[in-house]
Amino acid sequence: MGIILGDHQYGKAENRIVRIVRDTPRHEIRDVNVSTCLRGSFDEAHLTGDQGAVLPTDTQKQTSYAFAKTVGLASLERYALALATHFVADVEPVDQARVELEEFAWERVSVGGAEHDFSWVRSGQEVRTVAVTVEDGATWITGGLKDLVVLKSSGSEFHGFLKDEYTVLEPTSDRIMATSLVARWRFGDVDAATFDFDESYAEIKAALVETFAGFHSLALQQTLYEMGKAALEAVPELVEVRLSAPNKHHFAYDLARFGIANDNEVFHADDRPYGLIQASVTRDDAPAAGPAWQQYSGLV
Amino acid sequence: MGIILGDHQYGKAENRIVRIVRDTPRHEIRDVNVSTCLRGSFDEAHLTGDQGAVLPTDTQKQTSYAFAKTVGLASLERYALALATHFVADVEPVDQARVELEEFAWERVSVGGAEHDFSWVRSGQEVRTVAVTVEDGATWITGGLKDLVVLKSSGSEFHGFLKDEYTVLEPTSDRIMATSLVARWRFGDVDAATFDFDESYAEIKAALVETFAGFHSLALQQTLYEMGKAALEAVPELVEVRLSAPNKHHFAYDLARFGIANDNEVFHADDRPYGLIQASVTRDDAPAAGPAWQQYSGLV
Amino acid sequence: MGIILGDHQYGKAENRIVRIVRDTPRHEIRDVNVSTCLRGSFDEAHLTGDQGAVLPTDTQKQTSYAFAKTVGLASLERYALALATHFVADVEPVDQARVELEEFAWERVSVGGAEHDFSWVRSGQEVRTVAVTVEDGATWITGGLKDLVVLKSSGSEFHGFLKDEYTVLEPTSDRIMATSLVARWRFGDVDAATFDFDESYAEIKAALVETFAGFHSLALQQTLYEMGKAALEAVPELVEVRLSAPNKHHFAYDLARFGIANDNEVFHADDRPYGLIQASVTRDDAPAAGPAWQQYSGLV
Amino acid sequence: MGIILGDHQYGKAENRIVRIVRDTPRHEIRDVNVSTCLRGSFDEAHLTGDQGAVLPTDTQKQTSYAFAKTVGLASLERYALALATHFVADVEPVDQARVELEEFAWERVSVGGAEHDFSWVRSGQEVRTVAVTVEDGATWITGGLKDLVVLKSSGSEFHGFLKDEYTVLEPTSDRIMATSLVARWRFGDVDAATFDFDESYAEIKAALVETFAGFHSLALQQTLYEMGKAALEAVPELVEVRLSAPNKHHFAYDLARFGIANDNEVFHADDRPYGLIQASVTRDDAPAAGPAWQQYSGLV
Repeated sequence: MGIILGDHQYGKAENRIVRIVRDTPRHEIRDVNVSTCLRGSFDEAHLTGDQGAVLPTDTQKQTSYAFAKTVGLASLERYALALATHFVADVEPVDQARVELEEFAWERVSVGGAEHDFSWVRSGQEVRTVAVTVEDGATWITGGLKDLVVLKSSGSEFHGFLKDEYTVLEPTSDRIMATSLVARWRFGDVDAATFDFDESYAEIKAALVETFAGFHSLALQQTLYEMGKAALEAVPELVEVRLSAPNKHHFAYDLARFGIANDNEVFHADDRPYGLIQASVTRDDAPAAGPAWQQYSGLV
Repeated sequence: MGIILGDHQYGKAENRIVRIVRDTPRHEIRDVNVSTCLRGSFDEAHLTGDQGAVLPTDTQKQTSYAFAKTVGLASLERYALALATHFVADVEPVDQARVELEEFAWERVSVGGAEHDFSWVRSGQEVRTVAVTVEDGATWITGGLKDLVVLKSSGSEFHGFLKDEYTVLEPTSDRIMATSLVARWRFGDVDAATFDFDESYAEIKAALVETFAGFHSLALQQTLYEMGKAALEAVPELVEVRLSAPNKHHFAYDLARFGIANDNEVFHADDRPYGLIQASVTRDDAPAAGPAWQQYSGLV
Repeated sequence: MGIILGDHQYGKAENRIVRIVRDTPRHEIRDVNVSTCLRGSFDEAHLTGDQGAVLPTDTQKQTSYAFAKTVGLASLERYALALATHFVADVEPVDQARVELEEFAWERVSVGGAEHDFSWVRSGQEVRTVAVTVEDGATWITGGLKDLVVLKSSGSEFHGFLKDEYTVLEPTSDRIMATSLVARWRFGDVDAATFDFDESYAEIKAALVETFAGFHSLALQQTLYEMGKAALEAVPELVEVRLSAPNKHHFAYDLARFGIANDNEVFHADDRPYGLIQASVTRDDAPAAGPAWQQYSGLV
Repeated sequence: MGIILGDHQYGKAENRIVRIVRDTPRHEIRDVNVSTCLRGSFDEAHLTGDQGAVLPTDTQKQTSYAFAKTVGLASLERYALALATHFVADVEPVDQARVELEEFAWERVSVGGAEHDFSWVRSGQEVRTVAVTVEDGATWITGGLKDLVVLKSSGSEFHGFLKDEYTVLEPTSDRIMATSLVARWRFGDVDAATFDFDESYAEIKAALVETFAGFHSLALQQTLYEMGKAALEAVPELVEVRLSAPNKHHFAYDLARFGIANDNEVFHADDRPYGLIQASVTRDDAPAAGPAWQQYSGLV
């Protein structure tokens, strides 16, 4: 019986790059957190310490910043693609490269009713995510968002559930439903050089949020499925949507003890525990996912 | 030589209250984090364990939730005032009460171009704060905000500074200036029953942000003073503004090593260390602050 | 072309359970964060909102707390196993259940040199983790730890690495190596009813830490492999160890500018970016992992 | 009516300095987070942007790292004192300097029963704090700790409290008492050049923890007072102790609904809201505190 090396990967996580375009007096900004991850023939580094096949993580960092200038960040996806392709094409031991981005959005400050040329306030609403994986001859592109907190104060029921000896929950036909949404979506066959990823992002986000709001819910599970379905219907290039939704419980507060009526008006927003629902919604002819979902930090 | 009890206070921190108004099909929401703090004659609780003068923190919690219904949260300041006044007026050992609130803002979801009646997405831009202190016959009201992240990619200089043997910083006439602003402001003589605190909040925030954006800065210190001054000029009822601003450093990345020009286009957004500037801007006839700035968690 | 439901799962996350054993004057404590996750035939909940097959997450919560009394937490693994087995055996629609635990360790307070019977101080050194997955007739048990921060101020080199046009890093034969370790390990065939998981945990942690300290490192990759190997050698029941290690960079500070020598004595501990190395070390006859690594929050 | 500048201060926060002593094969480590804050004649920087009196925060950073070598960190307090004294003595516009430190403790790794010479594991138990303030001719030294989490599963009562119409809490004669302690203490007249601050730290921590454990409590208020008193009695050089203690509520879980007895054995550890108790315990002849408690981040 022997001991052997299994899967392994390495890279540089969380390069905090801010890219300003200042070719005209009206600047543009992109604010991203870039992680690069290389997969390939790095066994010797683990087994003997020989680093001959290892491009240092410091080099990956330098490359990320350099490409922010030479390729630019006008398109997050094309930046990630260029960076991942470079590692696979130009660094011999690399078989597969994955580049993950978080984008922090900024809104222009309005001064006297006019948008300012070079001042912004950070829009804290959600973080946009991108993950691109490249092998020789193949590419997988996913988008996503996280920390999108939504709440509806009506239009949500929960009843008819399975009961056992530990079930004490009362059914309800009107409750607050709230979540901090994480969504990731996988693109099928797109021409990455020309596809408008920013526009599709806006369409997907709108589909998710409008469905959360407008769909009368019998359960968070049902709402999630409808949200994924709406996103797939809105953007034909999507083949799969994955959703993770903590059920941020809002408990109607018991004020009857004080002779005060509380008809779903005063709630305690609880921290823990919380329900956690996860689901994937796909086209029935979606191609295999390959490494699309294999996150950088996902091995452990 | 003896050992004696000094200052002391106690209360219930972080009641997470969500208040829905649903009198019509178009609901309203207020989402707040409420902390209550009592000051007074509680020596025996410390010295002998006699709790006869101690209103339990659990009771303070119940009261916070009850008042969310009976007083309501249409005005954050009037809710806080009612709660603090109740503790001082109705609980005999209490000499002074302080109520602190954080408000998390929500925006209505837009569905097909129309605002939804009861669905919201959380606006992560900044957290609004309120602190009200009440004694028998006296009231202090402060407002504020935190986590307001702003950045300008030009219009900021820093040079002509003092130098000593440890000074290696190069002067600059064009840099990114960014901060995560904390501001608190103190109201003078206002009729709390009728004053429009929400409107003044919007005016103060606008004054702070527009000044950050529009004022050509020779130093973050100068910008902070101008921001405070602008807020005082915008709202006559204000008598003092306090500002705390971490200088979120953005360092132009050295790409010259790779033969790439970087004319303030690619930056590394660093985490730590950071400059931290704090300043107060006041009217020259501002009344004494009394306990206005004595935060709940500020004793230790 | 149609849209279909893909993988899905749900449960209750982060039940914060503290279990005291007080049968004698000398109490015992277990402090855990318990998450339960059910997988099975829940399609209707997503597709139509019919909850007939859905055991509420509230019920899962109640069960977690009830089992903390009836089964107890003397063994984390046997508690998790009992809970997961209950869901699979007693709740008809459930095909597979996963229970994940974090344990926060406490040390007895020493009073006058003697261990106190019922007072503890929390040991913040690392968080122990357990994940148990149960299907009808099959069981997978993994253990682990996270947030174990280790540092060595010598005995670490890094040179001979691959270079390209973006490589500016200098090789070094003596540097600080530090990481915040995440490790997870998979047990093979153990008699879960009698195996001493606590003892094996102590042995594995010791193997990991002693190898980090004692092994002269040519790269973090090499150290990780040796750590995993040492754990496998220490505990025969282990079949795989997975390790994730952020390279917490400590940069020797440039004091030469001030005429001060700094021979690896003063360092800046940087936050971001950081190298991130992940690797798996296995026995060559390890059985297939099945769902052992499919974390609760891992779908998205 | 005019607008004027009020209090102001500035500095460099969170320099993450790691200092290794490697004069012998057995290394020593100090891991600190250093913040420097200057107070003085900086009006022009705010009013006109003239930086002639402003020593850049970058220079303060360089000085912090340089002093880590030249003065060393063998004594946290003497390092802070040297740094603050330098700013006041050598930088003309500075009237008062404050240096705040957090220390992260490390324990030597044990390899085969022997302490390793240059490898450590971080002890996460608590963070030690130091704050030194210097003016021309005067010095204030405070110590402290934070994040010290303690719990006792018996020996804690709470009853006989004040009741009003919102009081529903049941009195108890046996409950879990737990807190995450923040303590700060002020030294009176000590010879800072020779005083053993590390020894006094150990004595104060022991006094706090042993009193928490051993004292039978009628309320958290009473326990805090006794803890402060014990610290003052243990270290004659102390003149004041300030304590802040969130009451980390552990609620006995209602298992009676399932026919299961729960005699204070299974608890839910709740997050929010929490009671928050703060108190100061002093000698009756303590000198005035001056700026000792004026924290760097305390103006806003």
